[in-house]
Amino acid sequence: MATPSPGYSITARVEAPASPHITTALTTAIGAAGGALTALDVAESRADRIVVDVTCDAVDAGHAAALEKALGAVEGVVVRKVSDRTFLLHLGGKLQVVPKVPLKHRDDLSRAYTPGVARVCQAIAENPADARRLTIKRNTVAVVTDGSAVLGLGNIGPAAALPVMEGKAALFQQFAGVDAWPVCLDTQDTDAIVEIVRAIAPVYGGVNLEDIAAPRCFEIERRLRELLDIPVFHDDQHGTAIVVLAALTNALRVVGKRIEDVRIVVSGVGAAGHAVIRLLAAQGAREIVACGRSGAVHSGQDGLDEYRGWIAAHTNLQGETGGLTDVLPGADVFIGVSGPGLLTGDDIATMAGDAIVFALANPDPEVDPAAAGEHAAVVATGRSDYPNQINNVLAFPGFFRGMLDAGAHEITEAVMLAAADAIATTVAPGELNATYIVPSVFDPAVAPAVAAAVRQAVTH
Amino acid sequence: MATPSPGYSITARVEAPASPHITTALTTAIGAAGGALTALDVAESRADRIVVDVTCDAVDAGHAAALEKALGAVEGVVVRKVSDRTFLLHLGGKLQVVPKVPLKHRDDLSRAYTPGVARVCQAIAENPADARRLTIKRNTVAVVTDGSAVLGLGNIGPAAALPVMEGKAALFQQFAGVDAWPVCLDTQDTDAIVEIVRAIAPVYGGVNLEDIAAPRCFEIERRLRELLDIPVFHDDQHGTAIVVLAALTNALRVVGKRIEDVRIVVSGVGAAGHAVIRLLAAQGAREIVACGRSGAVHSGQDGLDEYRGWIAAHTNLQGETGGLTDVLPGADVFIGVSGPGLLTGDDIATMAGDAIVFALANPDPEVDPAAAGEHAAVVATGRSDYPNQINNVLAFPGFFRGMLDAGAHEITEAVMLAAADAIATTVAPGELNATYIVPSVFDPAVAPAVAAAVRQAVTH
Repeated sequence: MATPSPGYSITARVEAPASPHITTALTTAIGAAGGALTALDVAESRADRIVVDVTCDAVDAGHAAALEKALGAVEGVVVRKVSDRTFLLHLGGKLQVVPKVPLKHRDDLSRAYTPGVARVCQAIAENPADARRLTIKRNTVAVVTDGSAVLGLGNIGPAAALPVMEGKAALFQQFAGVDAWPVCLDTQDTDAIVEIVRAIAPVYGGVNLEDIAAPRCFEIERRLRELLDIPVFHDDQHGTAIVVLAALTNALRVVGKRIEDVRIVVSGVGAAGHAVIRLLAAQGAREIVACGRSGAVHSGQDGLDEYRGWIAAHTNLQGETGGLTDVLPGADVFIGVSGPGLLTGDDIATMAGDAIVFALANPDPEVDPAAAGEHAAVVATGRSDYPNQINNVLAFPGFFRGMLDAGAHEITEAVMLAAADAIATTVAPGELNATYIVPSVFDPAVAPAVAAAVRQAVTH
Repeated sequence: MATPSPGYSITARVEAPASPHITTALTTAIGAAGGALTALDVAESRADRIVVDVTCDAVDAGHAAALEKALGAVEGVVVRKVSDRTFLLHLGGKLQVVPKVPLKHRDDLSRAYTPGVARVCQAIAENPADARRLTIKRNTVAVVTDGSAVLGLGNIGPAAALPVMEGKAALFQQFAGVDAWPVCLDTQDTDAIVEIVRAIAPVYGGVNLEDIAAPRCFEIERRLRELLDIPVFHDDQHGTAIVVLAALTNALRVVGKRIEDVRIVVSGVGAAGHAVIRLLAAQGAREIVACGRSGAVHSGQDGLDEYRGWIAAHTNLQGETGGLTDVLPGADVFIGVSGPGLLTGDDIATMAGDAIVFALANPDPEVDPAAAGEHAAVVATGRSDYPNQINNVLAFPGFFRGMLDAGAHEITEAVMLAAADAIATTVAPGELNATYIVPSVFDPAVAPAVAAAVRQAVTH
């Protein structure tokens, strides 16, 4: 299933004989070892030897090592050094803080700093609402994590989570002109996280919670929404739910079914699963069965926490029990926000006709998308190397752009439904098909459409 | 004493008769009202009327209103609108967060974000020291305040303090390429501040405490230095002390005295005074008398807190008592880090010959610098509109540049002394005179010199 990815791209500097056949030998070696060659640059040339930079994509770290070995096995070739292009990109971090005002001479300094700044401070002290006008609060979002549930890596802590939060902040600026800043907290205590985010909030116009483990994330979100007058969004919940709903809206159009009529099986009852279920229900889905590690969630169970209790009370009205493969037969829609390899193509074959499969576990989906595609009408994953990538970057930049522009803070279901609809309708009717149910993450129309929908929804 | 400042610059849009004398009438009106005209632009012109943008510096807000009135009093002139250029500059805040990596297509995303970023996260999880190499921690400083002692404005709170912290962060980037970020805390509880800064530290390579009231600031600094493995600097203390020592070093050269021999009176025993006294003592000053609001600090006093107790134990060996004017006679050096208008020219006249006066209270100094200059050999202030501006921007950018480059965290007196010496020696012997004891804040040689001195001092 795995294919070479630019996320695992290496550049090997090799010394080789100056033979007319050498580049062929190098490209053949990479190809035979399963690498995807992306560039071959001669860095130095002498009469008898040349130095070549061979850049290629690998599948993973082990494969990168195998490619290095394959190059070294070419006759007369010596591998001098292998650089990992991903690590090179991350050197020194991915964000810069730059002044928006000139600071070239004394007059600039007098206005941007002392003594002029004192008047701006006084204006805010007298009228706190002016902070949104006269400071970075107007356009700035905190990307907050405790490092407890980072990507598929789990509880790796705040320092190791920072590269992800920097990337997220970079996407905020790139896609929606939002200034975002990483807040990686060296505590996993719910009360401490709530108090810290409350205390740092004066600088921010919004809070994006990220990669915080469930069920802690639910309480943190709820309490911060009560305490703060700025929007509090948990991307793993709300971002995922918005993009899943957008994709499902279009997938249902492709197969000609209505959300009110379909039977939906959701695998995963963590942060993402919980939020997806709530938003699908808000959009009119009537028949949802949620499966966690211990099988279908139903109201006959004991010992459910508050959040699973909500799921039990609002889904699985038939009280189905058993594992994922027990409840999947006959389902119109499968949505996986759980873990890798839970289903086979044969399992997908048990679903209803024109089935829709969203296998979103990253990097390895709940079911091999190729196998699923043999039995389902529409397949989507979280990966960039298959069609229909369900990627939160379709939602969060435009969502916050709209909230900040409107100066709004309450994130209602109506606002999230509007955002999902905006993403779905960015795919024109003529473009819509089973391999194109969501727009490209690089479609420049997406973030403005989401922002406009959010602005309109918060003011109605 | 007050002169028009670009910190109080306004632009008035006025409609006026299209007469050949109108610009003269407008400039005369501004001049007569005490304003400093900086620009006069005709924005529109019709047969009988013109629209002119008149830009001028005022002394303060009241004076700006008087200038507006003066323009309106010119015959035939109607003032349409007055814009405050300082407020215009601050609109939307003064900082932007920008990606340092390309995010233009899918391969970029695969490296900067998922899936490639996961390997970078794992590398840091396995070797936490890699965070300094692979994240923004390498080059990023938190500018932390609780808004309790902001400029001369006092306890205006975290939101109103934000424009100052943004300005500070902008200066960090402008002068030393350091990425700095405002952390304005909505709490003034010492324990809470310590715990929050400890918890947010994974993102930062240094902490710059700013505008936190004494004595709280001392305990916060001390506890954070124990908890963290990154430098903790309190600019109001250490930045001020470094620049004061640099200026004093050069002022003593001008008058031909040695620090070991002079009698120094310090007015102000808050954060700045405390740190100035400690650093002067570390440099060899033997005779220092410190004055607070209740007069000279001496070891015979009861009820001194830990920090004033230190001052009492290490200064005023003669046990002098009384107010500032009682201890000033015969002093070689006066350093004011206190409040406005405490001394007159006559008081300065009681000092020793070739007296040095640093009147650093902002915006209004302890003594009118013009009056002081009649009796002292060297006068310095914190203001940009007099010679010898003692400005912390000479120290903090280069200081953190050096600490970050060295990956060092302990701020010793030796490091601060080295930084002060670097600032002092940036003024070449041929440039040094009574009106030029510190380099210009825009001298591009200062920050690199300070950084180099710090790097060298921390590795010895």
